[in-house]
Amino acid sequence: MTSDYLSLFFRPKGVAIVGASRDPVKLGYGVVRNLVEHHYDGPIYPINPSADEILGQRVYPSIAEVPDPLDLAVIVVPAKMVARELDACGQRGVKAAIVVSGGFREVGHDGAEREEEIKAIAAHYGMALLGPNCIGTIDTHTPLNTTFVTGQPRPGEIALLSQSGAVAAAVIDWARGSGVGFSRIVSLGNQAGVNEADMLGAIANDAQTQVVTAYIEGVSDGPAFLQVATQVARQTPIVALKVGRSSSGAKAVASHTGALAGAEAAYDAAFRRAGVLRASRLEEMLDWARALAWQPLPKGNRVAVLTNAGGPGVMAVDALEAAGMQLAPLTEATKAFLRQRVPPAASIENPVDILAGSGPATYALCLDALLADETVDAVVVMTAPQDWFAPLSLAEVVGEVSASPLGRRKPVLSVIMGLASTSDATQVLHRRRTPNFAFPERVASTLAAMWQRKQWLDALPDTPTVMSASSVEPHPSLEGMTGWLPPHLIDDLLQAYAIPIPKAALVNYPDEAATAATTIGYPVALKLIAEGLTHKSDVGGVKLHLMTPEAVHEAATTMLNQVEDGALYVQQMVKSEVEAIIGVVRDPQFGALVMVGTGGTFVELLADTAFELAPVTPAQAAAMIGRTALGRLLAGYRGKPPVDRQAVIEAIVALAQLALDNPTIQEIEINPLMVGISGAYAVDARVRVS
Amino acid sequence: MTSDYLSLFFRPKGVAIVGASRDPVKLGYGVVRNLVEHHYDGPIYPINPSADEILGQRVYPSIAEVPDPLDLAVIVVPAKMVARELDACGQRGVKAAIVVSGGFREVGHDGAEREEEIKAIAAHYGMALLGPNCIGTIDTHTPLNTTFVTGQPRPGEIALLSQSGAVAAAVIDWARGSGVGFSRIVSLGNQAGVNEADMLGAIANDAQTQVVTAYIEGVSDGPAFLQVATQVARQTPIVALKVGRSSSGAKAVASHTGALAGAEAAYDAAFRRAGVLRASRLEEMLDWARALAWQPLPKGNRVAVLTNAGGPGVMAVDALEAAGMQLAPLTEATKAFLRQRVPPAASIENPVDILAGSGPATYALCLDALLADETVDAVVVMTAPQDWFAPLSLAEVVGEVSASPLGRRKPVLSVIMGLASTSDATQVLHRRRTPNFAFPERVASTLAAMWQRKQWLDALPDTPTVMSASSVEPHPSLEGMTGWLPPHLIDDLLQAYAIPIPKAALVNYPDEAATAATTIGYPVALKLIAEGLTHKSDVGGVKLHLMTPEAVHEAATTMLNQVEDGALYVQQMVKSEVEAIIGVVRDPQFGALVMVGTGGTFVELLADTAFELAPVTPAQAAAMIGRTALGRLLAGYRGKPPVDRQAVIEAIVALAQLALDNPTIQEIEINPLMVGISGAYAVDARVRVS
Repeated sequence: MTSDYLSLFFRPKGVAIVGASRDPVKLGYGVVRNLVEHHYDGPIYPINPSADEILGQRVYPSIAEVPDPLDLAVIVVPAKMVARELDACGQRGVKAAIVVSGGFREVGHDGAEREEEIKAIAAHYGMALLGPNCIGTIDTHTPLNTTFVTGQPRPGEIALLSQSGAVAAAVIDWARGSGVGFSRIVSLGNQAGVNEADMLGAIANDAQTQVVTAYIEGVSDGPAFLQVATQVARQTPIVALKVGRSSSGAKAVASHTGALAGAEAAYDAAFRRAGVLRASRLEEMLDWARALAWQPLPKGNRVAVLTNAGGPGVMAVDALEAAGMQLAPLTEATKAFLRQRVPPAASIENPVDILAGSGPATYALCLDALLADETVDAVVVMTAPQDWFAPLSLAEVVGEVSASPLGRRKPVLSVIMGLASTSDATQVLHRRRTPNFAFPERVASTLAAMWQRKQWLDALPDTPTVMSASSVEPHPSLEGMTGWLPPHLIDDLLQAYAIPIPKAALVNYPDEAATAATTIGYPVALKLIAEGLTHKSDVGGVKLHLMTPEAVHEAATTMLNQVEDGALYVQQMVKSEVEAIIGVVRDPQFGALVMVGTGGTFVELLADTAFELAPVTPAQAAAMIGRTALGRLLAGYRGKPPVDRQAVIEAIVALAQLALDNPTIQEIEINPLMVGISGAYAVDARVRVS
Repeated sequence: MTSDYLSLFFRPKGVAIVGASRDPVKLGYGVVRNLVEHHYDGPIYPINPSADEILGQRVYPSIAEVPDPLDLAVIVVPAKMVARELDACGQRGVKAAIVVSGGFREVGHDGAEREEEIKAIAAHYGMALLGPNCIGTIDTHTPLNTTFVTGQPRPGEIALLSQSGAVAAAVIDWARGSGVGFSRIVSLGNQAGVNEADMLGAIANDAQTQVVTAYIEGVSDGPAFLQVATQVARQTPIVALKVGRSSSGAKAVASHTGALAGAEAAYDAAFRRAGVLRASRLEEMLDWARALAWQPLPKGNRVAVLTNAGGPGVMAVDALEAAGMQLAPLTEATKAFLRQRVPPAASIENPVDILAGSGPATYALCLDALLADETVDAVVVMTAPQDWFAPLSLAEVVGEVSASPLGRRKPVLSVIMGLASTSDATQVLHRRRTPNFAFPERVASTLAAMWQRKQWLDALPDTPTVMSASSVEPHPSLEGMTGWLPPHLIDDLLQAYAIPIPKAALVNYPDEAATAATTIGYPVALKLIAEGLTHKSDVGGVKLHLMTPEAVHEAATTMLNQVEDGALYVQQMVKSEVEAIIGVVRDPQFGALVMVGTGGTFVELLADTAFELAPVTPAQAAAMIGRTALGRLLAGYRGKPPVDRQAVIEAIVALAQLALDNPTIQEIEINPLMVGISGAYAVDARVRVS
């Protein structure tokens, strides 16, 4: 197992640079420079057959001649020479290698062949291989910097895992400018060896790292990622920016569920399951990261806003409420305390506006009082530029109160507005581990993300952690089947999982249909079954509310005349108040993805749906329903009686299990699931098997 | 009219400071300091009975003794003394006054009385009054700075109108830090005299101003704002941040339309009508402003992205597509040109990725080629930090190409990522009037806003510019009516505006109902009419599909038994494919607000609605439908035939006119408007009059 060696990417004893150069424009120079300049304190071994010394370091003609200790090789030679050098590293006993060089899979067929070759070499020697086509690793605490990128963030608590070297470089530059410290940074490159799941585990396995950020273009091993992320997230928050929404494209699937799902719904569900917080923009990822790294989680969603001006306060309140946070009511005791400390015209209601004349001392007293208030879960401290005191002084005060015993119990976020007069204040706040934001709106999504994590942690004991198949054998009726299942097999399958279905019969002739209808009891529905027919209602293949044998006979005759080789499904009409849809699609990365939403023929139009990965617990199914308008329909909408929500929950849980147990099922869709006062019936279901 | 004097707030000849001080912590010092330091070149007259000289300026004991020229007084004395000083200004013949002092309406009853007093004084002398409780005005070109706020942006093209002095101060500090120039800045304060509409006209009446930004907490005169904004926006883009969403609260209204509307829908509709671009965050307002001020509008929505790394390109593309922009396809000629100028591994497809090794010269060639490509409407130039060249060099190149004759025809937006190494590059780009953004996602909403403005300008010739009532007299049936109208009056009203209704009769007894039904023709619907009954279907007050006189009689009997004093409405059942809702609510600021959406009983649940201010043209009505899912339903959803969209458009236009002509109508709701293959019928309508 190479994974034992992953820590060597961050804490190696001895680093060789294969392709080290004395030419400052070469990457092979930059790597040596960064190791030296950023004070790596183990031995540095530049390898170059035609140089004696680089930046004061003795140069070795080949890796074979490098003495112990030597854990890590950084390879920066042209693509065609990488295989030979990597092999030499293997022979020398190097346990971990970073291939910085590009010219592999990303350049086409020849490159892909070269990549396979180095992959085989690494496997042969049991070497951990990072890259190729990456910028390497940084650990600011070791310290170690194997990249060629100029500059390094100060030591801190945020780790970054990036599938783009350019994004890593941009974050490094941003971090240097904003005074935000990082613990570890790693660029994954082409992932010929180490993938995102391996590295997520390795990067988080670090006492310094308080939060992991991840720039992700795609997950290469869904189950492994889910498992590692779930494990990491129990201790360390993970914030991910998943890009590539636009290029994911529409899948060619026949069901509503498939059309509504798409890869992004699977990522959303996977991240939600694993406790990965999904940011929508790079800047948002960095906003969330520093708050999660530095501040405690809020115990609730009630926020106090402390400001010296009304306008900025309104902006913050707008954004907080839009993000699902609430304004803390404040106790009478707090208000009485504030009343004695602020100018008469100040507002002691939340948002607390202490007016432009108040200084750092008043801020300190008010912030302390708000932190002590039991109705407050988090505090946002804001200031607009004014002439009474330096923003720096406020930064010192806010940082100090936030780090006090009282302050450490609740998150404090700061909004010192402006730019020209505030950069020193921002640096001070960031050094004191209080996140600062130049614009008020950004605290809202940040606090909402912290609150989301708190809720995820609280729900952990009830959450299934593995995607294990249950002990049930695949259902016998699926054996040898492909394509869309016939209705009687679907009925067998649903009944095996206790998903209620209406009474029904499969017949071939109008006479049989009338007889079956009488046995089942009126009213009945009649459905045409024919090859390639998936949306029956679009072609008149469904007749509802048939009340007599004659009506059934007539409808059956009309339907059968429409197709060459059709059969008919006679089905009891179930009385219901609400139509739901539940379904499953199998995502190539994350497996069975379960959907629930408002049913009927408008389902795609409304897109009122929620997704979860299988398995689904009853609590998760209830939460899914709660994310949709279906939830309000089930509760009894506009004077209608509430219907059997529990039956929908049970159907979702059962459907998820069915999909887990039967891996050949590609899609299931029950639409409508007819929900009545008591019970929910799968009135129309389609299942596709491969 | 004081409005003739509004230009004196920006270009006065002679400024007096009433309450000037030698104490540097006093506001009365700050105002004199800013006038002097920011080089106001007219006479400056500090007024102070007990000083001789402040900052080298001769001090006058009272305003009466100040010589000509004197256009503007800045008053910074305590609230209680303001009235006396303002009166003295009036006597002296001062034409415009800025009251900086606080302590008026914002502090309660006594302050409100003081505010009425100074309002009366200003009116008496015909003085233009800005404030009280404001920070004054800046014109960087005059130059004039009447505020006490430290620092001033460099002269530029962006004007800011703010209902918060703190927000203005924050923008000033941000502008200084980011190198973005401003033309005029004004803080409105309590608006005792000049309001947002007056000042919007005045601030935009300036050759230097290329865009107006506005921080708005509420509009005090809706029609005036609409008129001025529409006029200004024809020449100069307006970007507004309207805050106070959360505090606007839910209105107590009985109709769906009212519940769905709220003040924010009215602001959205008003801004859309007036061509005001509504930003959702302060930072977004500033992003849009500098692009609109400096760059031409795109002629279409096709964007070329030029990047030196894949990851940043993907982020930009994700955000662009989410914002409704498209990737330009690029011509074969462009691709052939690029192929000769970029490394072999580069991507010449859009997003064009010229790889990390390419420098400013390659950027220049590629940017020029993309600007020359006829399939490209706008270009985004991006770079992640790298070691090959200074970001500054790229900034020079991008700024230069963007300012070339070719570059001036299409917008160029820049994304130089990072922070530590990029601030000089940002300053250079901003000096060269090319907007720069540190994060890729922000270009997307910016380009979308520019494209929105282009479409608004293109649609202008077809847009009604005034909210004039038509020449039609209020309908006679409304005379003396209040509350909910009875159905026969509603029918009269709808027929007067050619909105089709089903055949119907109003009756009092079951026998009459059966007879009326036979006359109308079966099937019929029966509806209970009773005091205070608005949502009939909630209480069994609606029976549909009645087929015989007996059924009508029975249903009528049951309904009438439910209430003390009821009547019945017998109505022809109209065959329809789609149910729509159309409605009107009267917004206190902006007047009749017209709604269309998916109808039926789920309308509030779905909230699938679009709003416009009355009057509504057919093109606007069609666009409203296009913003809702109803649009897709009307087009023929899932195999159903398309229905009569034109009839819905006509009904919306007519309903808007009805509301304009009859100002006592507070709410109208037609739900459902039954839309068939031919025609749309108002099956159930409610109208409230006051």
